[in-house]
Amino acid sequence: MSHARPLPGYFFEDFAVGRRFRHAVPRTLTEGDAALYVALTGARQPVHCALPVARAMGHRACPLDDLLVFNIAFGKTVSDISYNAVANLGYADVRFGAPVYAGDTITCESEVIGAKANSSRKSGVVYVRSRAVNQDDAEVLSWIRWVMVNARQDAGSVAQVPELPQAVENLLVPAFLRPAALGPAVTGGSRLWDDYAAGEVINHPGGLTLEESDHMLATRQYQNTARIHFDAFLAHGSQFGKRLVYGGHVISICRALSHDGLENAFAVAAIHGGSHVNPTFAGDTIYCRHVVLGRDEIGGRGDVGALRLRMLGVKNHALAALPAVASGEKNPAVVLDLDYSVLIARRQKP
Amino acid sequence: MSHARPLPGYFFEDFAVGRRFRHAVPRTLTEGDAALYVALTGARQPVHCALPVARAMGHRACPLDDLLVFNIAFGKTVSDISYNAVANLGYADVRFGAPVYAGDTITCESEVIGAKANSSRKSGVVYVRSRAVNQDDAEVLSWIRWVMVNARQDAGSVAQVPELPQAVENLLVPAFLRPAALGPAVTGGSRLWDDYAAGEVINHPGGLTLEESDHMLATRQYQNTARIHFDAFLAHGSQFGKRLVYGGHVISICRALSHDGLENAFAVAAIHGGSHVNPTFAGDTIYCRHVVLGRDEIGGRGDVGALRLRMLGVKNHALAALPAVASGEKNPAVVLDLDYSVLIARRQKP
Amino acid sequence: MSHARPLPGYFFEDFAVGRRFRHAVPRTLTEGDAALYVALTGARQPVHCALPVARAMGHRACPLDDLLVFNIAFGKTVSDISYNAVANLGYADVRFGAPVYAGDTITCESEVIGAKANSSRKSGVVYVRSRAVNQDDAEVLSWIRWVMVNARQDAGSVAQVPELPQAVENLLVPAFLRPAALGPAVTGGSRLWDDYAAGEVINHPGGLTLEESDHMLATRQYQNTARIHFDAFLAHGSQFGKRLVYGGHVISICRALSHDGLENAFAVAAIHGGSHVNPTFAGDTIYCRHVVLGRDEIGGRGDVGALRLRMLGVKNHALAALPAVASGEKNPAVVLDLDYSVLIARRQKP
Repeated sequence: MSHARPLPGYFFEDFAVGRRFRHAVPRTLTEGDAALYVALTGARQPVHCALPVARAMGHRACPLDDLLVFNIAFGKTVSDISYNAVANLGYADVRFGAPVYAGDTITCESEVIGAKANSSRKSGVVYVRSRAVNQDDAEVLSWIRWVMVNARQDAGSVAQVPELPQAVENLLVPAFLRPAALGPAVTGGSRLWDDYAAGEVINHPGGLTLEESDHMLATRQYQNTARIHFDAFLAHGSQFGKRLVYGGHVISICRALSHDGLENAFAVAAIHGGSHVNPTFAGDTIYCRHVVLGRDEIGGRGDVGALRLRMLGVKNHALAALPAVASGEKNPAVVLDLDYSVLIARRQKP
Repeated sequence: MSHARPLPGYFFEDFAVGRRFRHAVPRTLTEGDAALYVALTGARQPVHCALPVARAMGHRACPLDDLLVFNIAFGKTVSDISYNAVANLGYADVRFGAPVYAGDTITCESEVIGAKANSSRKSGVVYVRSRAVNQDDAEVLSWIRWVMVNARQDAGSVAQVPELPQAVENLLVPAFLRPAALGPAVTGGSRLWDDYAAGEVINHPGGLTLEESDHMLATRQYQNTARIHFDAFLAHGSQFGKRLVYGGHVISICRALSHDGLENAFAVAAIHGGSHVNPTFAGDTIYCRHVVLGRDEIGGRGDVGALRLRMLGVKNHALAALPAVASGEKNPAVVLDLDYSVLIARRQKP
Repeated sequence: MSHARPLPGYFFEDFAVGRRFRHAVPRTLTEGDAALYVALTGARQPVHCALPVARAMGHRACPLDDLLVFNIAFGKTVSDISYNAVANLGYADVRFGAPVYAGDTITCESEVIGAKANSSRKSGVVYVRSRAVNQDDAEVLSWIRWVMVNARQDAGSVAQVPELPQAVENLLVPAFLRPAALGPAVTGGSRLWDDYAAGEVINHPGGLTLEESDHMLATRQYQNTARIHFDAFLAHGSQFGKRLVYGGHVISICRALSHDGLENAFAVAAIHGGSHVNPTFAGDTIYCRHVVLGRDEIGGRGDVGALRLRMLGVKNHALAALPAVASGEKNPAVVLDLDYSVLIARRQKP
């Protein structure tokens, strides 16, 4: 009777530090998933939707969007980790590994790396390190997240908070990758790594109003089973009285909106940290602002660098009228605040 | 001018017992359909979404979800059989045959096996046996359904009601199938055939609120053309004043919701009978309860058995607060009541 | 810094006659796109969804729906041409070329062929010829459209209006094509080229109510970035106060609705002219009426002909109660008025 997830899911008391979960339902991603992801997010990065571009960059096929992989992998963990979560509190040390191609199968496992009961003993925070691998056991994603989970009866007084890395070091760039194959003719933008400067603010021009049907389609594609996204009857009695949009989908939307302005940022390499700072609901219109935090070199590569970015997901507020948001500042219009790095080609010296 | 479906569709008078229809628009199912079906239903049975699992079970690829095949085949029959249907009254003798893989093409034909005019002579009940085959003429589905259809002018007094089988005998299990390849690590559940007992009630934990966009997307995927699902302007003047959710999609939703609790039930083998007992509309939240009716052995196989189940689709009502629903009882919260069988691995004696 | 589309898009002053744009984001279409298109439109033409039918017609695989190709190609041009468009005024000389199969990659370029400032000098009309080619540089689509675009500051007094062809001549039919392979058993209709007569009016029986989620999914699939379709917050301050449905999707819907009545019209060969005569919004129910304008022979082919049709897209109005709409007449129920040609098999003389 091992591996039997209880029907009502796990509660705080079940998350002993060191406990491991091998999450159910491996998933083979296909061209169907790639097409659907474009329709759900409006993603336009050519490496994911144009085969000749992907091949020119050294890929054997179009890799699936990094955030599709993130959301699929995340979805696998929900039934075990966050089925009874009150809130998804934060991310750290999110590392993107081997590219995922149509036909690849993702499986996922997690380990509890920390747990801290709340003083009320009615709930607590659980820290989990999760890993997703492909069918050849190559790591495609590794990440830490922490969630507030209800106690079944009594959360007790456990207080084991793990030390979290401030940033992901040693970003992975596949040796075969030829970033120079991307360029303005295919991406629509001419700015490369060299052209961005720390402190630059980009208010991306697009906006997307979310509908119940949209976010549920996406969240089902991710096979994320958290009831708060799907069950309006249940949600009526919840804190917000209505369904909540899955936060990972908001990240996908922001990434897609940011194509205009970050056209050549062809991959997400890492998420250093961040959180969903306010809830998103159907009917909200999402905008995206980026703040360039800095440029990082990639060891051994003169052709590609990393931009460290702060992604702000904003709702129902014109970006032009949104003041600078200080780190840690609570702005009711901001729903997402991520510190992450993208890969982008560098200008080759002639 | 044969095979010319009249633009307004057929009426009761057109359904002479013995008349045959070869339904138009063969359909090749693809990985795109499989991906979309996951997004529309949240289905998580690994044999349909994880290639290594499907192969370990003996399949050459992931077979498409049985209920996707059912809904696609059903959809083919609508233009001829139920375009002018008032209600879809019931199913019997639904047999699932050869697995359908991406790339397979389904065609469908029907024969009128009964017809009974209503006393008003304004409509009548038509009984149809339909069959769907793949490109090699292997049967993938066979089913009886009966519908109430409007008369063009006068339904007359015909009363030929066919005898319907109470249950499907001799459930088909492909010889190549290795059910033992499924297990808790991939499905998330450890219960096998041996672990379920007649009378057991399972209230599956998930719920899904349907939206107009969702059910129309699904019903268009099925190429089901019944206007009542799509045309709000027309539906405004109908019995319910609004669009009706296609019942077959509700079956798909219930099957997907029941993954948590029936994790190892890897295939639908037959639907013995059942009906859509109340209408479903956008905005309704669907839940699923199963009652185990019994366990059946599969001839010649010690590794796999059938569970006979009663599937209750429930709307806008917490399952925990729903009393037992007697057979034939009219409960306004119940929208779907099916008697069917699933395949599930048996414990191997050591 | 060439090819750098400005973040806020181009304005009237940027469209000098003769200027060329090579549009960004090439797109590989897949079986996933084909499946999604069926779900979004309800398209049922067998050549696009049944592999054995496509092969019997001489195709090596199912070609993608002509209007999916049209909308994808159109979408590529939006960021450069119509990001700041006030209105999409009309089409001319739309020629469909080589079939597009799953795996093919489309790229697109445009040339400004005319520009006329409005007397207010606040906006003007821009005429553009666009071309989409596949990865082998074969033309898949060529079209002229004209749009009203806002001026950045002053539209000036330019008045270069190109001469537009009244009709597309020399419709392209691939030499390999065997239209006789289609027939009533697969399409559901028995009428061929010979059976339609000029002046015939077809009120197609289906109707489709559009939802916000639907049209946004479709428009994102097309990677069309025009904000008015997606951003309800921005649209609140616009002329209509709400999101507008992308007109190209309405064409797709009308084409799909017209399957019942034009079952054997297997391809769109050309759009001679037409326009979106009224806006469409979520909640509108779309119907389609066709008027047969005439029958055209295809040079050198006795087995296939063209029907010249007028497609009327109608909203929220029963077609049976809609009077004849004179050419150029403004009827508030009509949203789409296209003059175009479809290909359809001819009866073979015995």
